[in-house]
Amino acid sequence: MSDLRYDPVKQRWTVIAPERARRPSDFNYNRMPIEDIEDAGDCPFCPGNEHMTTEEIFSIKNENNEGWLLRVVPNMYPIFKVEGKIERKGVGVYDKINGIGAHEVIIETPLHNIILKDYSLKILYNLFYTFKIRMLDLRRDIRFRYILIFKNYGEKAGATLKHQHSQIIALPVMPKMVTTMLESTKKHYEKKERCLVCDIIEQELKEGSRIVYENFDFVAICPYASAFPFEVTVYPRKHNHDFASIGDQELSSLADMTREVFIRLNQVLINPALNVLIHSAPPLVERPEYPGYWKSLHVDYHWHMEITPRFTSFAGFEGGTGFHINPVKPEDSAKFLRETHIG
Amino acid sequence: MSDLRYDPVKQRWTVIAPERARRPSDFNYNRMPIEDIEDAGDCPFCPGNEHMTTEEIFSIKNENNEGWLLRVVPNMYPIFKVEGKIERKGVGVYDKINGIGAHEVIIETPLHNIILKDYSLKILYNLFYTFKIRMLDLRRDIRFRYILIFKNYGEKAGATLKHQHSQIIALPVMPKMVTTMLESTKKHYEKKERCLVCDIIEQELKEGSRIVYENFDFVAICPYASAFPFEVTVYPRKHNHDFASIGDQELSSLADMTREVFIRLNQVLINPALNVLIHSAPPLVERPEYPGYWKSLHVDYHWHMEITPRFTSFAGFEGGTGFHINPVKPEDSAKFLRETHIG
Repeated sequence: MSDLRYDPVKQRWTVIAPERARRPSDFNYNRMPIEDIEDAGDCPFCPGNEHMTTEEIFSIKNENNEGWLLRVVPNMYPIFKVEGKIERKGVGVYDKINGIGAHEVIIETPLHNIILKDYSLKILYNLFYTFKIRMLDLRRDIRFRYILIFKNYGEKAGATLKHQHSQIIALPVMPKMVTTMLESTKKHYEKKERCLVCDIIEQELKEGSRIVYENFDFVAICPYASAFPFEVTVYPRKHNHDFASIGDQELSSLADMTREVFIRLNQVLINPALNVLIHSAPPLVERPEYPGYWKSLHVDYHWHMEITPRFTSFAGFEGGTGFHINPVKPEDSAKFLRETHIG
Repeated sequence: MSDLRYDPVKQRWTVIAPERARRPSDFNYNRMPIEDIEDAGDCPFCPGNEHMTTEEIFSIKNENNEGWLLRVVPNMYPIFKVEGKIERKGVGVYDKINGIGAHEVIIETPLHNIILKDYSLKILYNLFYTFKIRMLDLRRDIRFRYILIFKNYGEKAGATLKHQHSQIIALPVMPKMVTTMLESTKKHYEKKERCLVCDIIEQELKEGSRIVYENFDFVAICPYASAFPFEVTVYPRKHNHDFASIGDQELSSLADMTREVFIRLNQVLINPALNVLIHSAPPLVERPEYPGYWKSLHVDYHWHMEITPRFTSFAGFEGGTGFHINPVKPEDSAKFLRETHIG
């Protein structure tokens, strides 16, 4: 029989329906096509083609300073534009905001044809360091309510360019999904003076069946109410609401953790398409009508990273309920990922 | 520049990013493959193969009573099972419910190879009549908190069998998405003594630019904050929280309305994969700890039907914000659908 499981942070039920379960090999249809990964002389993200991108915002050079290891550029086709004043309007019963924000692309490596399992610790460290630097910079702009960092890997996960990249989007509104998560942790703290996510981590470590990998600073689990097969959440052991405040030790440790998870996902699912997402507390917000008055920090929040392979299509059930049917028990996903042979 | 638009019922922002817009013909990749629609002697939903389904719950016979026009059967691979007692449990910080519910399949027609644009008024009337009958029957079971009616049309929209069918799912929990919509309409009513959706309909009729089609009882619009291109919502003009209370006149009128919408979507997008969804108020709920005490009806709610072509893939942005990027302005979608030539 299926189970409904509740995610206390996302305040969302998931249907775990293992009768519909299959072996990991049945999920290989979502792998990122290997044949698509080839050198492309006209790739705007390749070295030598820097003139094809918009003007560089940030970069990391290689040791002898002869080339770059990573570049950040504004998205050529941004969802939101940086220039202008935010205008908030009522339209009868509706509301509207003009699309002010930021939309940056992080070109993660000069290598055109690298796949995720082959990412070195150095590539990953540089990537997370850049996430931090760009987040710190963007949050100085008081127009922005939330800063979203994500990566779409493979066509099925929404990637439109093959050369590996991540995206940072600064939004003029706070997404309800984020508000919900902030509320869950706030309410739990107000009642218990404990962090909800710290409680989750403690329970998971005690229980053990959903653990994928642990290192000194991080724990990777398949969440109790996973909405998708082989979904992995990476939690910092230390309570911290703010991704951008982590130090060098944690950045290195996060590189180690994600490398492990990517290799394990590749072992079990063969280069699956996936999304990577950082959930961190929103920046301080100055209220325009009271200059100098800042809305309080969400220190009860606990930042974390989601790594979600993409398989199941969006259908009527998801559209009508907002929750998902997961055909693989999170305990089974975790077991496959935990026990896979890393050669 | 893009716009963010707020849906006051769903309490959700959508990014309308028409810079990324394309012509309707660019969306044809989501069409339901014509070559897939062929006669299949081993189709469990075809006449003569009734023994291949589970036991019939309901059917509509043809005039000379020699065969059926529509059948309802329990899903062979149900997400939820009818038998048993609902068990609600805490699992440390988490919650869990066993998968008790109902999962029925409506075989909409004996014809194996019909496509949506060719549905007659009679097929559609029978279908909506059956939705009503099954909803009325299922809501007598006090274990169920919400009854969801939907259709997945085409592989991209989640259909796994080619022979046309809809699904009814009775859930042991109320989805947060539904709660949100019930709250929006309730709050609006408490403050204004007016229905939020009635206000929306009035504004849309006055504005005109998002109207797709109107008949005596219904109005079809592309919603102001449409999350998807060519998304259509059908509203009953008369305030009514409960789909299952509509009469014969309205059922016929709804058949006319949906036939128009399906034909227009087919004209503009060429047989697109899509989901149909009915949003109706949840049934009365008896609280087990107080027999005879029923939770009040959500009479402030306004039932409606959503028809959503499926194109855009789910990527990091949607996963991190819960809202969508729609590359087509709802006013443009509506104009295409309103002005298309119906031959």
